[in-house]
Amino acid sequence: MQSSTNNNGEILNEFELIARLSKLDSAKILEENNTVLTGIGDDAAVVSTPANQMLLTTDAIVDGVHFRSVDERWFDVGWKCAVSNLSDIAAMGGVPDHALVTLGVPPEASVETYADLYNGMNAAFSEFGGSIVGGDVVSSSTMFVNLALTGHPSSDSFGELRTMRRTEARAGDLVCVTGPLGSSAGGLEALLNGDTNPSSTILIDRHYRPTPQIEIGKKLVASGVRCAMDISDGLVGDLQKIAKLSTVNITVEMANIPLATELIFMFGSSAIELALSGGEDYELAFTAPKPLVDDLVANNIGLTVIGSVTSSESPDGQVDVIDENGEMYEPIRKGWDHLNG
Amino acid sequence: MQSSTNNNGEILNEFELIARLSKLDSAKILEENNTVLTGIGDDAAVVSTPANQMLLTTDAIVDGVHFRSVDERWFDVGWKCAVSNLSDIAAMGGVPDHALVTLGVPPEASVETYADLYNGMNAAFSEFGGSIVGGDVVSSSTMFVNLALTGHPSSDSFGELRTMRRTEARAGDLVCVTGPLGSSAGGLEALLNGDTNPSSTILIDRHYRPTPQIEIGKKLVASGVRCAMDISDGLVGDLQKIAKLSTVNITVEMANIPLATELIFMFGSSAIELALSGGEDYELAFTAPKPLVDDLVANNIGLTVIGSVTSSESPDGQVDVIDENGEMYEPIRKGWDHLNG
Repeated sequence: MQSSTNNNGEILNEFELIARLSKLDSAKILEENNTVLTGIGDDAAVVSTPANQMLLTTDAIVDGVHFRSVDERWFDVGWKCAVSNLSDIAAMGGVPDHALVTLGVPPEASVETYADLYNGMNAAFSEFGGSIVGGDVVSSSTMFVNLALTGHPSSDSFGELRTMRRTEARAGDLVCVTGPLGSSAGGLEALLNGDTNPSSTILIDRHYRPTPQIEIGKKLVASGVRCAMDISDGLVGDLQKIAKLSTVNITVEMANIPLATELIFMFGSSAIELALSGGEDYELAFTAPKPLVDDLVANNIGLTVIGSVTSSESPDGQVDVIDENGEMYEPIRKGWDHLNG
Repeated sequence: MQSSTNNNGEILNEFELIARLSKLDSAKILEENNTVLTGIGDDAAVVSTPANQMLLTTDAIVDGVHFRSVDERWFDVGWKCAVSNLSDIAAMGGVPDHALVTLGVPPEASVETYADLYNGMNAAFSEFGGSIVGGDVVSSSTMFVNLALTGHPSSDSFGELRTMRRTEARAGDLVCVTGPLGSSAGGLEALLNGDTNPSSTILIDRHYRPTPQIEIGKKLVASGVRCAMDISDGLVGDLQKIAKLSTVNITVEMANIPLATELIFMFGSSAIELALSGGEDYELAFTAPKPLVDDLVANNIGLTVIGSVTSSESPDGQVDVIDENGEMYEPIRKGWDHLNG
């Protein structure tokens, strides 16, 4: 609360920290962004909006829950925090625009920690779109980072702004995913086990440096896909959200779920469990009629069909997983609930 | 992290909490808001933007730093968190639009706590503009609330979109404030002292239920004011930010600073210290040429002239406080630094 009148250089000062972060090389990206009319330093940022519709999302990460400060992988922590927000924009088929960052800073924090973290966020924004235009710095005994990100919808083939919604799955649709699942969760297990072989290293990289599917999201909208979400809490749990909001049943064929070779190598028959319920892969799950999926495949948009929407008028929605023998499979885990770790 | 497969009703579940909060009466405001195309429940909110410029701000509050959970004044905590963001929009002369809320939820939290907190936020948005369209819920050993708020600029008398900036103070401008200062800090002291007399009660109310000056902000823009900020960290510290960013010197005449009668009654000669450096009053400070200030006074816009911009070309900016004898006065406190409580 009240500041010391004689801060020495060792104590992290709110205004010094903001000044330092705004001087990072990566912050120069901002100066070249002509949609930012007033950036960091005023009461609010002023930005121009490219469309008359806007996407808004926010995602926070907390020490001991989403990352471990003892690992000191600050660049990666920043990268992943940015990606978790970028992925929400990708899931709507949108284009990322402007980010606000809130830092919850514990007493023992160093400026270098936050510089690394900012560089990680800025690297992700630089690669996938978006830029940091403002934020807040607050004292907190637990370190946390909150990002709020704006975006704008992309257009379908008729030039109409469209977003992909969780409510738009229809009976007869195929259910698809954009890439292999379970790698991030496998990377986390490898990390906790202290594994250092080449396969583990690849999975750990998937855990620390996920990719938001911004480009694929835009292509899906352009092709007419209307229903998508990102897989952040686990495949089955996330499809359950689509099923409930679209009031449909979904059947997933377990044998069709794409798995990374490294995941199979490291985890054998347990790999499928990681794919069914492991979070933070940030691939997209989407549903669309078969002719549209055929078009996407013909256009080399990377996807795997993993199931179908089997019936409509299911008020609570239901997701069934079928094994290679056609038997119902009950995943051991059910997905991620952020309040019950 | 990983959820329990057999949560009982006592354990707070992320999805249950979101569902409960989205069913609050106050959430109905949202349904009547025709700028919200997709609200809570998808990957991102979709909103329509009323102008081709947008304001973005964020402000977080943390247990033990900005509020004390032991006080259990959850409605007030929510109100104040909303107001701290609304006040940033007011300081730009803007109109609030859409908010994203992140809740950092400790293990012992109850749904009722968050319902009260949401009701407090929604009450402030309902009164001053804006509505909650999405958010995130995360587990955190320290409770925190982050709000990100969008807005749009209002127009000047020529119909041009304008924002008031901290960089626009000019030599010769008068320095004005929109209301009495120090009341919130006085309320906090009264609270910590356990005072319960009527004056204390009024000050404590100013501490818990501040008002963002949205309407005055819009009027200032319409009248041609170009430089403003909100007083959230203390008058001298905040004017220092204007001085630095505008590269000017500012002189404040201490005797002209407006003080609430209750503050003088409770704190006597110490009242001025609370006014100079106490935070969270959320009044606006602005600078403008004298003829413009005369117009504002003629139009009954509540303001008090407290000083002037005395010289330009001052690279670091400087704020001098002059007492009733014309002597330089050195405030005991310097303002609020959120990292050094």
